This record gives sequence, C-alpha cells and structure tokens, in this order.
Amino acid sequence: MTESRPLPEAPLRILPLGGLGEIGKNMMVLECGDDIIIVDCGIQFPTEDMPGVDLIIPDVSYLVAQSHRVRGILITHGHEDHIGGLPHVLPDLDVPVYAPKLAHGLITVKLNERRRTRDAVVHAIEPEEPVHIPDAMGICIETPWGSVIHTGDFKIDHTPVDGHTIDLPALAERGKNGVLLLFSDSTYAELPGYTPSEQIMTDALDRAVGGAPGRVIIATFASLISRIQQVITAAENHGRHVAFVGRSMVANVQMATEMGYLDALPGTIVPVRDVAGLPAERVVLMTTGSQGEPTSALVRIAKGESRDVVLMEGDTVVISATPIPGNERAVSQTIDNLLRQGARVLYDRIAPVHVHGHASQEELKLMLNLTRPRYFVPVHGEYRHLRAHAQLAWELGAAPDGIFVLEDGEILEIDQDGAEVVGSIPAGPIYLDGPTVMDTDSVVLRERRSLARDGVVVVCAGVDQDGELTGQVQVAGSGFMDPGDAKDIFKRLRRRWRWGFQAICPPTTWTKRAQTSEKLPDSSYATI
Amino acid sequence: MTESRPLPEAPLRILPLGGLGEIGKNMMVLECGDDIIIVDCGIQFPTEDMPGVDLIIPDVSYLVAQSHRVRGILITHGHEDHIGGLPHVLPDLDVPVYAPKLAHGLITVKLNERRRTRDAVVHAIEPEEPVHIPDAMGICIETPWGSVIHTGDFKIDHTPVDGHTIDLPALAERGKNGVLLLFSDSTYAELPGYTPSEQIMTDALDRAVGGAPGRVIIATFASLISRIQQVITAAENHGRHVAFVGRSMVANVQMATEMGYLDALPGTIVPVRDVAGLPAERVVLMTTGSQGEPTSALVRIAKGESRDVVLMEGDTVVISATPIPGNERAVSQTIDNLLRQGARVLYDRIAPVHVHGHASQEELKLMLNLTRPRYFVPVHGEYRHLRAHAQLAWELGAAPDGIFVLEDGEILEIDQDGAEVVGSIPAGPIYLDGPTVMDTDSVVLRERRSLARDGVVVVCAGVDQDGELTGQVQVAGSGFMDPGDAKDIFKRLRRRWRWGFQAICPPTTWTKRAQTSEKLPDSSYATI
Repeated sequence: MTESRPLPEAPLRILPLGGLGEIGKNMMVLECGDDIIIVDCGIQFPTEDMPGVDLIIPDVSYLVAQSHRVRGILITHGHEDHIGGLPHVLPDLDVPVYAPKLAHGLITVKLNERRRTRDAVVHAIEPEEPVHIPDAMGICIETPWGSVIHTGDFKIDHTPVDGHTIDLPALAERGKNGVLLLFSDSTYAELPGYTPSEQIMTDALDRAVGGAPGRVIIATFASLISRIQQVITAAENHGRHVAFVGRSMVANVQMATEMGYLDALPGTIVPVRDVAGLPAERVVLMTTGSQGEPTSALVRIAKGESRDVVLMEGDTVVISATPIPGNERAVSQTIDNLLRQGARVLYDRIAPVHVHGHASQEELKLMLNLTRPRYFVPVHGEYRHLRAHAQLAWELGAAPDGIFVLEDGEILEIDQDGAEVVGSIPAGPIYLDGPTVMDTDSVVLRERRSLARDGVVVVCAGVDQDGELTGQVQVAGSGFMDPGDAKDIFKRLRRRWRWGFQAICPPTTWTKRAQTSEKLPDSSYATI
Repeated sequence: MTESRPLPEAPLRILPLGGLGEIGKNMMVLECGDDIIIVDCGIQFPTEDMPGVDLIIPDVSYLVAQSHRVRGILITHGHEDHIGGLPHVLPDLDVPVYAPKLAHGLITVKLNERRRTRDAVVHAIEPEEPVHIPDAMGICIETPWGSVIHTGDFKIDHTPVDGHTIDLPALAERGKNGVLLLFSDSTYAELPGYTPSEQIMTDALDRAVGGAPGRVIIATFASLISRIQQVITAAENHGRHVAFVGRSMVANVQMATEMGYLDALPGTIVPVRDVAGLPAERVVLMTTGSQGEPTSALVRIAKGESRDVVLMEGDTVVISATPIPGNERAVSQTIDNLLRQGARVLYDRIAPVHVHGHASQEELKLMLNLTRPRYFVPVHGEYRHLRAHAQLAWELGAAPDGIFVLEDGEILEIDQDGAEVVGSIPAGPIYLDGPTVMDTDSVVLRERRSLARDGVVVVCAGVDQDGELTGQVQVAGSGFMDPGDAKDIFKRLRRRWRWGFQAICPPTTWTKRAQTSEKLPDSSYATI
C-alpha cells in the first residue's frame, strides 16, 4: 500500500507568456498556490511591418504585480530567444535568475552592459536533471501535482561536439515514475526523421576552411559557442588565425574563453585589426549577422560599409545558420550582396554549412514516449508547429483530453478534475523603440503603418474670430507624392485658396536620416 | 563550301529590364539596328518595406522613347510575372503583343478590365518552336547574328498533364545548327536533381479530395489553368461540385472554359452562392490567395472576413503553391489563421500538394547541353540563382567568356569581336500606388519609411512681422508616442510656451482606416 499524499488545495496553473504561437521571446510561467516559477525570458526580433521597433519582449505585467510570489527565473540555455528579455525585464521584476553555467556567462555579459541590471542576481547551476547538454538543459519541476518537464530547445544528438549526450535513461526513469506535464520544443515538428548531429559540422567546416583559397568569413549566432569552437578547431587544422567581428560575438568569445568553454592554441585568436597584416590564406573571420540583421557585421560587410572587413578577391563567406521564419528575405539579400562583391558564398541551400538545434519528428516522438506525460503542451513554435506536434502526440496514442495547444496568455489549470483552459492574462508583445515602450493597444504602430501607407498632409490656416482666413493657407506633405507632382496640385489649389506648399522636412534631411538610420535624440521633442 | 552571310553592321544588344537579380517583372529586350523585340512584360508584388505600393512594373522609359522601333512584345506564357505589366505598359507603349493561345486568353481578360487597354492589339500565335508546352513556350528569335533562344519558365516534364511534352529533338536540332545565345530560367538553379512531373499532382489532389471528410478548399495561382483542371477532375472522381472564389480566378476560369482549356462535366462547376445548399462532402472550392496576398480570397477566409466562405468543422484547406521568396511570412500567417479556425490544412512542408514549374539543376544542364550556345545569360532569378546557374554552365565546360551574369539595366553587346557589357539604361522598379507612379528616385517611399520609423510631429505657430508669437502654438503628432505619454511632454512644454497638443488625426480614424485598408479617395488632396 503506497502512502497517498493529501491533494494540494491550489490548482497548478500554466501561463505561457511567449513562444506559443510564435517563434521567439520564449517565456513560460508555472503557478501553484503562493509560488510562481518562470522558465526563460527571451526576445523576438521585429519584422518589416513593425517600423522603428528595435526589439520585442514578453508582457510581464502580470508577474510584476505578483512579484512577491515569484521564486525565480529558470533559464534553459543562453540563446537570445531565451535570455534576451532579461535586461529589459529584471529592472521591473527583481527576482533571482538560475541558469546553466554557459548561459550564466552569456547573461552576465548582457546584464553588465546596462547600469540598471548590473546588480541583478544570477546563479549558475549545475544541471543534473534529465535533458542535459552543456550549453543547455531541460528542466524538471516538482510541483505539488507532480513532475513537470520542460525540454527547452533540444535535439537528440548521440555524438555531440563536447561528448555530453542527452541523458535518455534519466528521462525514462522520470517517465516510469509518472510525469504530469511535458512542455516540448515544436520548432521543427513539421520535419520528418531525425535532425543530424552537430558532429557533421566539424567535417563540413573543416572542408570549407581547408578548401578555401583565401580568407574565410563565417557568420553564425553570437551565442552558438559550440559552433565557434568548431571553427577555431578547423582554423587550427589548416594553420589559420581567427578574428571576431561584431560587438556581441567579441564579448561572448571573451567570456567563453575565460570560462573555459572555448579552447584555442595561444596565438590562434587575434584581434581583427591584426588581420590586415596576415596572408589571406591564414585568416578566418567570424561575424554576427547570419540572420541578415540590418546593423550586423555581415550585412555591413555585404554592403561594403564595414570598417573592419573589406571583401576581396578569393574570399569565401560561410553562413552557418538557417534563416529564422521572417528573415528569409534579409538573408537572401545579404547573400546576393556578398556575391555581387565577388565573394564565394556557402549557405544552407547549396552546402551543408548548418545543422539546426531542434528535434525533428522522430526525436519528438522519442521524447513523448520516454516521458509519457499525463498532459502535453507543445511549446516554441508558430501555431502550425504546435498543431503538428500535437498531431504527433495524438498519433502516438496520447489521450486527446491531455493534449493542449495553447497560445500566449491562455491559462491552463490542472487539478484533480483534470485540465482546462480557464481564461487568459495579457500576453501581447511589448515593442521597444529605444526608450519608448509600446504594447498592442498602442496607437503608435498603427499610426506609423498608416503614415507609411498614405503619407501625411498638414494644412495650416489662421482663422479669425469670425472664421475668416487671416493669411495664406500652408499645406505641408511628406510621403504621399513627389514634391514636383504635389506642387502641380497645390498650384491649382492656390489659385483658388492662396495656398502654398512646402515639404514638412526637406527631402535631403529625410534621406540622410534614412541612410544612417539615426534615431531622433530624446530631446528632439523639445527642440522641434 | 558554305555560303557566308555578310556580317551585320549593327551589334546585337541585350537589355534586360526585369527578372535579372530579382524574382518577378520579367522583361527582356533584344535590339539590332532598327529593330527592337521584347520578351514578356511582368509584374512583381511589393514587399513589406514598400508601404502603400500595390504593384511593381518594369521601367519602360527607354522603350517608350524608341517605340517606333519596337516590333512587338512576345509573351512566353500567361503568369502574372510575365504578362501582368501589360495593362500598365501598353497605354504608353502602343505595340502589338504576340502570345500563345492560353496566354492570349489570360491577357485579354486582363486588358478588358481597363478602359485604356481595351483596344490593345494582341495576337494569338501557335507555337512550333523548340520549347513547347500548351500554356507556355520557349522562343527562338533569328537575329542577324544568329539564333537566340529564350526558355521562358520551363521544366522538362516527360509526362505533362495534357500530353504535350517538350520538343527535345527540335532543341537538339537548333543546338546542332548553332545557337548564338541562350536565356534560361534560373529560379531553381540551386536545386539538385529533377523537378517532379505535374502528373504526381493528379494523384495527390485526388487523394486530398477523396480523403477529406467535409469541404475541400484549394488555393492556387489564378493563372495556373492546368492545376485548376486537375482539381476539377479530382472533384468529379469523388462526386463533388467545384465553385470558384476570387475575382481573377472566376474570370480566368470563364475564359479558359470558353476557349476549351478547361473540361468539366455539365453541372460540375457551380456558382459560389449555390455552395451553401450542397452537403459539405459534395463541395470543392478553389480560391486565390496561395501567396498570402492581403486582399485575396483565402486570406479573407482565414481571417473570417469572407462573405463567400465561412470555415466550418471538417473543412480541409489545400495550399497548392510554394511561397515566392518574400511571401513566406504571409503564407505562414494564413496557414496559422486557417488552423486557428479549426480547418485541417495541407501545405507544401507537410504534404505533397504542389510541384513547382521551374527546372532543377539536371534539367538546366540538359537545356545547356542540347542548345550548346556560344553565349549564355541566366535569367529569372535573384542574383544568387543567376550565379548558381552560371556555375552550372561553367561546370559543363562553357567558355567563361561566354557566360554573362547580367542584372536589370545592363547592356550586353554582341558582335564579331565577341560580347561585352557596354553600359546601362534605367531599369529600376516602377512602383504603382493607385494612380501614383514612383520610381527609385522618388522621395515618396523614403519619406514613408521615415514616417513609419519615427512618426511625425508638426508645430504650428503664428508669428507676426516682428517675429513674436501671435497666439497659442499648436503641436500635432502621429506615430511617435501614445497620446497619453505625449501629453505629458507637451504639458511641460506648454507651461513654458503655451503650447497645446492634438493628434493630427483622431486615433479612431487611423484605426478604422488601418482595419479596412481603405485608400484615400483620389479627390482627398483637394478636400483636406
């Protein structure tokens, strides 16, 4: 006879704040009685229909109001879509952060850049829980209602670069003891089969570096430390030095080297300013910009606007990343610009230069079958990815009343009567434009889109107390017609109304701003 | 001893006006002495960084200035990226159009919609030249310098839906007699292997229609008549009726039926208003919107905004198309919205519901090897596609001085001394926003992007002859801050300057406009 625990009084509540119904800004909240635990706190990058937006973070207003109950933020791994929100959230939500060691390092680099987050409390933790790879971990949370497993981003790599394989027996053990709820990564739930091992990148990068006649420029994510290590190794195999371009990559490499996550022979890594003095066939450059981000190092190089790297005959550029949905066009344009400048370019459609970090269908099935959860909530994916993942679970025989395709903000409540969506909390995206914070209710983005679609015309008329015009009516326009064409229209109006026409801003001013992407200084409202 | 023709005096000039360095708005110009021949006249759809733009067409200013020399426009086939520019170009460039029969029908539908092009001269021609499939043809032009072959869009389909296979022996014959120049389709030059036959769609669509429990809604290109025929056949096999939704699809189906290109049993095709009276399992609907176009039928259905089709339990939606580069996000959002409404959705990543119409690498090699041209210019593709195609030619042993990767506007001149890029003509995109025409020099788009990124603030002050303020200073803003936040700033200013704040337009007005996507009426400039 097994001892039965008394049933807890408060239900377990699941509140996804990001990453469900979208790729990016992952954030999951678990709440039971007086305790709230958060998993991850990521950012999302803006798309072209969000003019002027720099970043998107989750809406944490619910958590800020409940901050006395928040026990901490658990971080699965150190990629932007899992940690990028911390610098923006921690000033308002003063709670401890727990992260695996490398993520701890990446977070520290990030928080130290900002005065307001320099004193945040971040604990490095040693994972000993089921899903365990050095850069990342799955998380198992023991709740009063049972075990909850969150896979984080995962794939099942039997030959990982650093030898730390995923702990499948521990997962199986958990599954045997009963798992209440599984959150599992859905990013590649549409893809049949298995995701290849990172190991194939070792050979691929070695061939790319070894076979290049001149310099090799490799772009990848600044936080993908294992890929950076593979490049360093490939460079050393072929007697090349490695230099890093791009602020975040330089900072992360320094941190990872100090923490022992990067292993390079003395002299292999050189500052980018020393590259000019080296023969081309002795150089590997690593840069940010694999997603075509407008201000990144690679995009500047592709446009011939980089101060650090000017492309030359014989250069090979390797884009060691897959475009995140929405970035396809920016990445394609970057490739085209690199080719136009005469570089040879290796990218995922024509060469095996990237392996993604997410499980495909066979791995997802394995995870479901090992953990055999009572409830399953697919996470990390646009709606169709979540649905595809739910379909997989259903095909494996999971009970339909145990599968919940949730989207950000929906509250799932679990108690002795089962699980049920009971309501929702605000979880819309929060847009950051410099110091300006906008939510989905903000009229700013709507107004900007209107301005963009139609331009603006301003009529300025002095009217006296009797409603009579007191002088010339001025009409100013921007973004609706070329000044020359508009002049004709306004000339006709002026004949009747004595109206004049002027551009709100001289076009040259707009143009200069458009080219340099300068922001209005904060004080501009006062000086206009 | 063969008779030698005297060398022509004027060189052959190649002037690409669209489709080289981009996907879409295909247009190629050949010029020799007093004769100019144009191949295709397509449009391109705007991307999200072109606010307010409806369509993009080629810049034909060079041709308009030379119109007395233009002998005609040859059309390879009737897809939008090959014929869509005609209604916008023909009013200024009054030259005859020659098109294969089906394309002739599609063009006529298009030109009849507009008063200014209703009288354009369009000739239907029967192809008897090398590349020959019924909807499309390659073109062989005999110039004084030799034969020029333009493949149009092609793939080598040994089992096409209508039995008209590509005429490979004729191509080989041409090749044997000597081909001066080959223009060949580069869209899928990155893809190894062969493109599958359209025939597999017959089975795939039959399975999709036969296996669906309720209605089947199939989205594809309105001009892809052969796919529409496949759907009609599948519907008839399973005792279903077919109705069409979307203006262009309805018009094209009517034309194609009248011309005998569509074959349906009496009663199979029904008006969409009759669908409500039929059992769900007797219905197939075909719609436009396979590229996620904002105002298309499928996007309206996905958003629950269609008057014709309201999704219901058991509906299956098939997206029988691949996203054109740049449209990935719009298509994904449409799929997500359809799933959210409870439909089952079959799309290219999870089901074999589309075969594209462009040759892969093995077919491109075959084309190069059959025609063995002296000069080769890859066409139809972004820059990396053209480069990949050029690389294929180089690998097949083509002389490097015979391969030219050109971009729009570059002039290639061929004469007895060889071929050489000798200059360029204006070939930037022309943006159409309703009646407004903008070129790349236009400040309108730059201003719109600036407005979108930063918003606008207008200060209105009356100043007397002495430079003194004559009344309250008004400040108006849009798209830079939420009115509440801005009010605080302007309150502080007002204390000092007696300034007032008002929105340029009440936010509710903007919102309404943003939701309904209404355009300003043409007369609005006068009524503001």
